[in-house]
Amino acid sequence: MANPDKKAVVLLSGGLDSSTVTAIAHSEGYKIYCLSFNYDQRNVAELIAAKKVASFFNVEQHSILDVGLGKIGGSALTDNIKVPKNQNLDHPIKNEIPITYVPARNTIFLSYALAWAEVLEADTIFIGVNVMDYSGYPDCRQEYITAFENMANLATKTGVTGKTILKIKTPLISLSKAQIIKKGTELNLDYSLTLSCYDPDSEGRACGECDSCQQKKKGFKEAGVKDPTIYQ
Amino acid sequence: MANPDKKAVVLLSGGLDSSTVTAIAHSEGYKIYCLSFNYDQRNVAELIAAKKVASFFNVEQHSILDVGLGKIGGSALTDNIKVPKNQNLDHPIKNEIPITYVPARNTIFLSYALAWAEVLEADTIFIGVNVMDYSGYPDCRQEYITAFENMANLATKTGVTGKTILKIKTPLISLSKAQIIKKGTELNLDYSLTLSCYDPDSEGRACGECDSCQQKKKGFKEAGVKDPTIYQ
Repeated sequence: MANPDKKAVVLLSGGLDSSTVTAIAHSEGYKIYCLSFNYDQRNVAELIAAKKVASFFNVEQHSILDVGLGKIGGSALTDNIKVPKNQNLDHPIKNEIPITYVPARNTIFLSYALAWAEVLEADTIFIGVNVMDYSGYPDCRQEYITAFENMANLATKTGVTGKTILKIKTPLISLSKAQIIKKGTELNLDYSLTLSCYDPDSEGRACGECDSCQQKKKGFKEAGVKDPTIYQ
Repeated sequence: MANPDKKAVVLLSGGLDSSTVTAIAHSEGYKIYCLSFNYDQRNVAELIAAKKVASFFNVEQHSILDVGLGKIGGSALTDNIKVPKNQNLDHPIKNEIPITYVPARNTIFLSYALAWAEVLEADTIFIGVNVMDYSGYPDCRQEYITAFENMANLATKTGVTGKTILKIKTPLISLSKAQIIKKGTELNLDYSLTLSCYDPDSEGRACGECDSCQQKKKGFKEAGVKDPTIYQ
């Protein structure tokens, strides 16, 4: 336990990555405040997974905010565009932004986390961004996170008074999916609680075919860990 | 008319400042997309003013997003804390953050503007921040805006492709309230449409006593322009 009085806001979608981040924040002894978003996404089932994970780690508080990203549009995750299935992950097109990219999503999520961190006087925000699997997402790169952190420290009361310096921790940023799964498994995370699928069915079961499901399957295989996911 | 094909997202609260910014963006020939927020604020009357101003300038589109800032709290504008009245504006306490400051508000608003700008392929966001009257608000300073702009250009598709460089324009940043009013008056803005009050009554009439009303009254007096506001 690093410092039991330290508070952290953890962005938790209920997926494999952010659930592992919650396990890491927990293992570092933070008081955890999980923040999830209902952004008119089709995969509301993720929020059910997020609740299970927050409960599993007995966090201080779990807030789910309704944010109207759907009104802005521009993504297969919020619009009625078909989620791509069975794409060849080993040959992604260089520099192409995936159709599942939601405009400025991480910026909006981190902004809410920043607001809550200020109210809680928490000095840390955890986010599960990862450059390995999501190389096409501009807001998953370290240079973006560093720029956000710099802006955040100018944006808030604490930034002006110099009382607290806000840190944004990205423990997964350079890990492969297999390494993430190994890490979470070491920390006793029950991955059957999580949901990482762009197109689950009405009972919240993963499709097994979208990019996210394929990456997950591959990751469990490479990690040598049994995949507890129940597919459709 | 600078460039009639240029699109801009304009953050419009319906107050004096952001309405003047809308007038400025209009005078510069932008296609205007106004963005307003319903953030559980007590002054929903502002949104009615925002609609009137957007309509006055015949903008391309006006979106009002529901954003759950109230769940986060920490401000007299979203919590049930009494708005301060009849404070002495000439003797503000140095480095004190006003109780009306909403945590990370401009960061959240600019993040949504960024998302919309990306979808619209707009290269400009206008925001009516001002260091003169709101020196206590950390997220109204130029260094904060510059840091946001830097982050924004790393956050988005266009930032990665280098196709568009996003600019955040702050035409009011170093103007006094009187200078803002003179500018808007030159541009034929009808200030009777606007509402700048932290505590309006049920009919949307300004209180005349909060900091915002006092600054507005003083500004009209100094500008030598008749204040068209109907006070309670």
